[in-house]
Amino acid sequence: MATNHHYNKVEASVEAVAIKARKAALSFQSYSTKKKNEALQVMKEKILSAKDQILEANQRDLAAAQEQNLETPLLKRLDLSSSGKFESLVQGITAVQNLEDPVGKVTLATELDQGLELYRVSCPLGVLCIIFESRPDAAVQISSLAIKSSNAVILKGGKEAERTNRALVDCIRDSLESVNVPADVVQLVSTREEIKSLLALEQYIDMVIPRGSNSLVRYIKENTKIPVMGHADGICAVYVDKNADERKAIDIVLDSKTQYPAVCNATETLLIHRQLLPNVFPKIASKLSEHGVIMKCDQESMKALPNGISAEAAEETDYTTEFLNFTIAIKTVGDVKEAIEHINSHGSGHTDCIVTEDEVARDLFFALVDSAGVYHNASTRFADGFRYGFGAEVGVSTNKIHARGPVGLEGLLIYKYRLYGNGHTVAPYAKGEKHLTHKTIVPQYRPNWEKTQTNE
Amino acid sequence: MATNHHYNKVEASVEAVAIKARKAALSFQSYSTKKKNEALQVMKEKILSAKDQILEANQRDLAAAQEQNLETPLLKRLDLSSSGKFESLVQGITAVQNLEDPVGKVTLATELDQGLELYRVSCPLGVLCIIFESRPDAAVQISSLAIKSSNAVILKGGKEAERTNRALVDCIRDSLESVNVPADVVQLVSTREEIKSLLALEQYIDMVIPRGSNSLVRYIKENTKIPVMGHADGICAVYVDKNADERKAIDIVLDSKTQYPAVCNATETLLIHRQLLPNVFPKIASKLSEHGVIMKCDQESMKALPNGISAEAAEETDYTTEFLNFTIAIKTVGDVKEAIEHINSHGSGHTDCIVTEDEVARDLFFALVDSAGVYHNASTRFADGFRYGFGAEVGVSTNKIHARGPVGLEGLLIYKYRLYGNGHTVAPYAKGEKHLTHKTIVPQYRPNWEKTQTNE
Repeated sequence: MATNHHYNKVEASVEAVAIKARKAALSFQSYSTKKKNEALQVMKEKILSAKDQILEANQRDLAAAQEQNLETPLLKRLDLSSSGKFESLVQGITAVQNLEDPVGKVTLATELDQGLELYRVSCPLGVLCIIFESRPDAAVQISSLAIKSSNAVILKGGKEAERTNRALVDCIRDSLESVNVPADVVQLVSTREEIKSLLALEQYIDMVIPRGSNSLVRYIKENTKIPVMGHADGICAVYVDKNADERKAIDIVLDSKTQYPAVCNATETLLIHRQLLPNVFPKIASKLSEHGVIMKCDQESMKALPNGISAEAAEETDYTTEFLNFTIAIKTVGDVKEAIEHINSHGSGHTDCIVTEDEVARDLFFALVDSAGVYHNASTRFADGFRYGFGAEVGVSTNKIHARGPVGLEGLLIYKYRLYGNGHTVAPYAKGEKHLTHKTIVPQYRPNWEKTQTNE
Repeated sequence: MATNHHYNKVEASVEAVAIKARKAALSFQSYSTKKKNEALQVMKEKILSAKDQILEANQRDLAAAQEQNLETPLLKRLDLSSSGKFESLVQGITAVQNLEDPVGKVTLATELDQGLELYRVSCPLGVLCIIFESRPDAAVQISSLAIKSSNAVILKGGKEAERTNRALVDCIRDSLESVNVPADVVQLVSTREEIKSLLALEQYIDMVIPRGSNSLVRYIKENTKIPVMGHADGICAVYVDKNADERKAIDIVLDSKTQYPAVCNATETLLIHRQLLPNVFPKIASKLSEHGVIMKCDQESMKALPNGISAEAAEETDYTTEFLNFTIAIKTVGDVKEAIEHINSHGSGHTDCIVTEDEVARDLFFALVDSAGVYHNASTRFADGFRYGFGAEVGVSTNKIHARGPVGLEGLLIYKYRLYGNGHTVAPYAKGEKHLTHKTIVPQYRPNWEKTQTNE
């Protein structure tokens, strides 16, 4: 009974949060670029001047987390005091400030008939819900992105970062209020039970973006009707083709696997062309071994290992495992088609690379590998919003719809069709008395979309 | 036991269909524009030359449906023999043939560094599943769209149209085979039980597109993890502002409600500014009454009805009802903000119109109404892919993500990021030895995307 009562209270309070977010989102869509950048500027200043309090809250979170024996990587992500971290959090706000306003862009403009003009204009999704663990800097980054894209956001942070998140979100909400933006554009909820309630609120929340462990992402995907943008797994592969340049092959395999193995764009599988087993493969294997990589080899590649280099026998599940450490699964393939088939049936649709000097093989790989990123002679580690030049990253999506791959501000938008008429009715067109012209027009014709941004 | 056995068989066979679709989709993405148009051309010819057999199959479906007392609208949609219907089905194929190939378009091109080039290129979603009732012409239309966009499609037709759909799909599959496109790009399944099994196959199916009754759409949305593109309701509103032109108001309300009330873009709600109750509203009401429209009025508008014109008292649920007939719910509002609030809380996000000569009111309405279509002085009936100039329509989406409003070929696509390198690794950039340049480049630089279309 007590538990039930508790759950009901959680549900009620989470629903209230979502209703407030929706209301804030509906009015926030009309705010000008100037206003949004002002909010970001004040936010930066307030966070800077509250640095001591924020770091103090962070120390208290850290102490509590250590007491509870939180894993080291989570502790690391929680800690804001390490060198440069607070500064880069603040720089992140400036970066978002400097991005072009993505709202109000005209992506289609057609004169349907005289005086009847159709425009497709980008607009915010509405209400975002971000579910993240540890890393309180994510609260700031995501809030900045939400503000810039005129979305409201519900931040569901982890309990381990509650004090830090609260201190940061207090600054953010103060900043919004001080420039007359509804504070409910950014709201924070923190308890574990709230996730389930949030995931049921599809009438108020337009998108869920998980930033956390695979198991968290999978739980979310399985428990909501709300579109989820993100990825559970990053099982990236490098295929070294028979016409690969040896130097490039060694460099790319090594970088893709070892440059930072704990992230989704690190490579987990090496596919090696059979013809390269006697010559190129031993050099790759030596290099991997030298860097402490544990290799899980199929029978053929195992036999081709150079003397003194050992490996484990690969099991079928190794080819669908995201190791996230210095382990790589290795498989021998007969040609590019076999490599493509392996990737399409074992990969996660994240990012896959072909190393080859053969353009035909490259083009086939590019056409047929069904992944968000297809790479030629480049490390899979390039799959990242900042490296792609988006200036900010919402996350990496392995979804097939809406937004795929590294997602910047664009992924937080959709569009509206605006039709400007002058009393136009459909009847005369249906009767054939009048005809639609469908003439493409210059979008600039409709002056000043800012006019519709009502709050200066 | 018998039932279980039967279900298991259905599931197995539906899964086999989906696996075949996925396989066909993966190879089909590389086919050239020329090849796809050839397939469409042969398809048109085969359907034309099989006209007699198709119409005969259709007559048998019709006879069976009449025996089972199918509702008249469904019978109408099933019947291919009515004047011009077969011809427009065939013309639909030509229309799709004439559309530009949407696959392979470059929507972003950035030089990340010397010799390291990033391209975002449109590509098919993969496997579509269309669930439709009656209208066998939809089978042809959707197959054409799928072929043009390089997607595979599973057509789940209604049992009432089984013979007709089978005759049409046989022609389509023959056509594909005759030009060496895998026939499994188009597959048909027909029994009711198969819907549930299909909706569970998220590992093979990328998008479900329902074309049918609200209850069918709602059932599908509630029973699948696969993204569903479509709309359950079309609750469109016309708001007549205090600064409306009387003539335009009368014309637009009448056309939006009566020009074809059985469809999703017909208007269901009239919001009338209080100041217009004494003068403009009685004229609108008379006109609606003259055309046989049943009005459901709030108290204020009820009192303002002219002599001799009667109406029913509106209940709250009338403002969230899709009547799809000659009925309209009428409500008095105090200003444009109240109208916006009503629409955002009662509408379905489909298409809503403001009638006004006041640009400030229009711009506020355009900025704050959260619908796929926001219209100024134009009938909501314009919300349609053909009227928008898309040449073909997949459906109308009230989703907030991926595609919104009338959806043409573009809605069946996503994109891949292609990265062309020359042995590039991330390490030197991470160490600060090298720097990314992020220079926008002219997409045309990469010659001939057709080169990656491997099957001529």
